[in-house]
Amino acid sequence: MPKIDLDTLKWRTGSGYPGKLGQMFDGRSQTALGDPHGLTQFGVNLVRLAPGAMSSLRHWHMQQDEFAIVTEGECTLVDDHGEHVLQVGDCAAFPAGDANGHHLINKTDAPATFLVVGSRTETETAFYSDLDMMVTDEGNGFAFTRQNGSPLTAKEIGDDQ
Amino acid sequence: MPKIDLDTLKWRTGSGYPGKLGQMFDGRSQTALGDPHGLTQFGVNLVRLAPGAMSSLRHWHMQQDEFAIVTEGECTLVDDHGEHVLQVGDCAAFPAGDANGHHLINKTDAPATFLVVGSRTETETAFYSDLDMMVTDEGNGFAFTRQNGSPLTAKEIGDDQ
Repeated sequence: MPKIDLDTLKWRTGSGYPGKLGQMFDGRSQTALGDPHGLTQFGVNLVRLAPGAMSSLRHWHMQQDEFAIVTEGECTLVDDHGEHVLQVGDCAAFPAGDANGHHLINKTDAPATFLVVGSRTETETAFYSDLDMMVTDEGNGFAFTRQNGSPLTAKEIGDDQ
Repeated sequence: MPKIDLDTLKWRTGSGYPGKLGQMFDGRSQTALGDPHGLTQFGVNLVRLAPGAMSSLRHWHMQQDEFAIVTEGECTLVDDHGEHVLQVGDCAAFPAGDANGHHLINKTDAPATFLVVGSRTETETAFYSDLDMMVTDEGNGFAFTRQNGSPLTAKEIGDDQ
């Protein structure tokens, strides 16, 4: 059935970020709309942000295009150029390789939701803008390191506290 | 700038369908959100349907995934299983190769808009469900024929009237 039953979506919380960095995402939940409905060529997710929550650490992708549209509430897009308020229906495009780190934050007192589409690629590297970290996927899972490839320290990922 | 200025979008009307089939789409207009903002790996379009207008002839894609979300008004998804009303925020997924012809119709008295995402592939074939027609793209543009590859007649595309 092409129409997606929004009432039966399975929302998940949790983060793949290393150490205590993941604890910054307790207010974020997401659900896949594409994969469970047979789409394989690009990813489609709905992401809900509780007040104060953010979509991700500010980052940019080497290989994968991203596109987002706000579907509920208000999100603030933060990138290298500052802050940009996105209301329901507002859209943003993030071309692969554009070194403009970005994320969405819910700075309001009400829930916010956005739909995000991303390319599928066999490998990927993404760089984080506000800390010395990158994530690489050579086809066998995500590996978080410093941007020169060296290991992150316990202090850098909050595990010394 | 990642945030898309919705006030400066260039909407276009018109249809690539052969003969007078294209005249059925005067109430449809669309604007690309991905390409003008640097995305190359998938297509993103906003499509506006005036009352009575439809998104396309009912069709399905051999190679390309499609995804749609209604952003304004109400659309009726018509597929092999009947009619399914999509309100704002409702989504539909159309996996490549699923031979379930589909299109969206605005059956209301108010404008309706949806956002649609589609894969990019080097070649493509799509089949139409309500007439003996297919479209093929071997990388050098669209060719409309009968589903056995033979030419469409003037009568079949309304050019005899």
